[in-house]
Amino acid sequence: MRLAVIGIGLMGGSLALSLKKKGIVSKVIGVDQNIDHQKQALQLGIVDEVMSLEDAIAASDIIALATPVNVAEKLLPTILNLVNKQVVFDLGSTKESIVNVANTHSNKGRFVPTHPMWGTEFSGPAAAQSDAFIDKATVICNKTQIDPDALLRIEQLYEQLGMHILYMDAIKHDIHVAYVSHISHITSFALANTVLEKEKESNAIFELASGGFESTVRLAKSNAEMWVPIFMQNKENVLDVLNEHISQLRKFKASLEKENPDYLLELIQNANKIKRILK
Amino acid sequence: MRLAVIGIGLMGGSLALSLKKKGIVSKVIGVDQNIDHQKQALQLGIVDEVMSLEDAIAASDIIALATPVNVAEKLLPTILNLVNKQVVFDLGSTKESIVNVANTHSNKGRFVPTHPMWGTEFSGPAAAQSDAFIDKATVICNKTQIDPDALLRIEQLYEQLGMHILYMDAIKHDIHVAYVSHISHITSFALANTVLEKEKESNAIFELASGGFESTVRLAKSNAEMWVPIFMQNKENVLDVLNEHISQLRKFKASLEKENPDYLLELIQNANKIKRILK
Repeated sequence: MRLAVIGIGLMGGSLALSLKKKGIVSKVIGVDQNIDHQKQALQLGIVDEVMSLEDAIAASDIIALATPVNVAEKLLPTILNLVNKQVVFDLGSTKESIVNVANTHSNKGRFVPTHPMWGTEFSGPAAAQSDAFIDKATVICNKTQIDPDALLRIEQLYEQLGMHILYMDAIKHDIHVAYVSHISHITSFALANTVLEKEKESNAIFELASGGFESTVRLAKSNAEMWVPIFMQNKENVLDVLNEHISQLRKFKASLEKENPDYLLELIQNANKIKRILK
Repeated sequence: MRLAVIGIGLMGGSLALSLKKKGIVSKVIGVDQNIDHQKQALQLGIVDEVMSLEDAIAASDIIALATPVNVAEKLLPTILNLVNKQVVFDLGSTKESIVNVANTHSNKGRFVPTHPMWGTEFSGPAAAQSDAFIDKATVICNKTQIDPDALLRIEQLYEQLGMHILYMDAIKHDIHVAYVSHISHITSFALANTVLEKEKESNAIFELASGGFESTVRLAKSNAEMWVPIFMQNKENVLDVLNEHISQLRKFKASLEKENPDYLLELIQNANKIKRILK
């Protein structure tokens, strides 16, 4: 099976390495506008060859669309125009928007909208990992609109990678990821900006920061070009969660301003309930 | 050298295990109001014996005060009343308040205010780790007020554990930890409350949550009884940082509401500067 990866970054690169390692694909063709990324991907053995979009589609059986979500949305109609029996799937963090684009295309049955629930704060081909997806969840959206052979191929591919598949409506997916992923990134970005704004002695951060700080600020290193279109596409859901989050922070503020340790205790003990969900 | 640990939880337990493992102390005496914790600490080999506060002080050379910070502050005068040549040090996350308490006592030279920059979201003796402090920083505050022999003993103890010592004014310490530790915990608690409030399908959290969510919400499991007094003691600094944090989050909100991707990009790229500080 020959794979074309459009966008050879953290996600596309990790997919290529994982599929190669498992022997699921015999050849990986890379497509990327960034010449440095093309070279790195070749050097790192992530792709076997770099081609134009048209040539890559013609030379492959499955096509992974792993660009930032705004680019994926723009490329999808072009790709579906060129596709015959091939299967196209994306790995984007938002699903409603791209599903809407696919739905206007006559070849929509060849497109499988997916979202593997894995990532790191790093980006580019050098960040790709060959064991990225093992034991993780992946989402497939709106499965009834997909050609059965195309769906089966991508289901098998994710299962062979050791992932478990969750089927979900695209609209519901976007609501859920606002809670379990997008808001975490916003709080982390905002926390980094808070510390950079207020703590002028960066030596103090460097020397004093322990695991807790690292843990909550880690995501603030995440790639801006990737995250801006995610937040813009999922604006309504993200704003909804962000408003709730600001209102939760205001409760902490009120408990401190009013010197009310009982209220503060109540807020923290409620937060501790997350233990039931996250081990 | 015989060590008394007042409060056998995550911090006190880890200190006892670490000092035992390195052969720095020959005996550990535990003091704890919680009978379950006493039993666990004995069973886990964290302490060799459990005694009353008075007996423990009489039978030891160094005394580690590792209770929640409000309890430490209350116990310190009693401990300093009982101390003769022994050295007392605390491990609390706030320093100004306890230093002020010490300063009113004639035996203040025997007290070394410290803060090892290590912790986890877990609590109690079962959470203690014997390699907790290796390669971490520890803060010693207001060193000029400490008897030279007492200071030297605690410096040597931390160095033998593989820690590097930062000397800091207690007031400055409390400002810095508000940025590098306390705000991380508040955002994490508030994030947990946000998700618990808005996401009623906890199965979706469980199934979709990946590394990013886990990372930012991990601290929300932290012990409420430990953190309430920390936040209350460091109220002014925490409020200062919390206000800045809410204002930073409002910028993200504004960029989304105004559908301004350029502003959003600017905010995220600024947050990315944290890479210079955290590798």
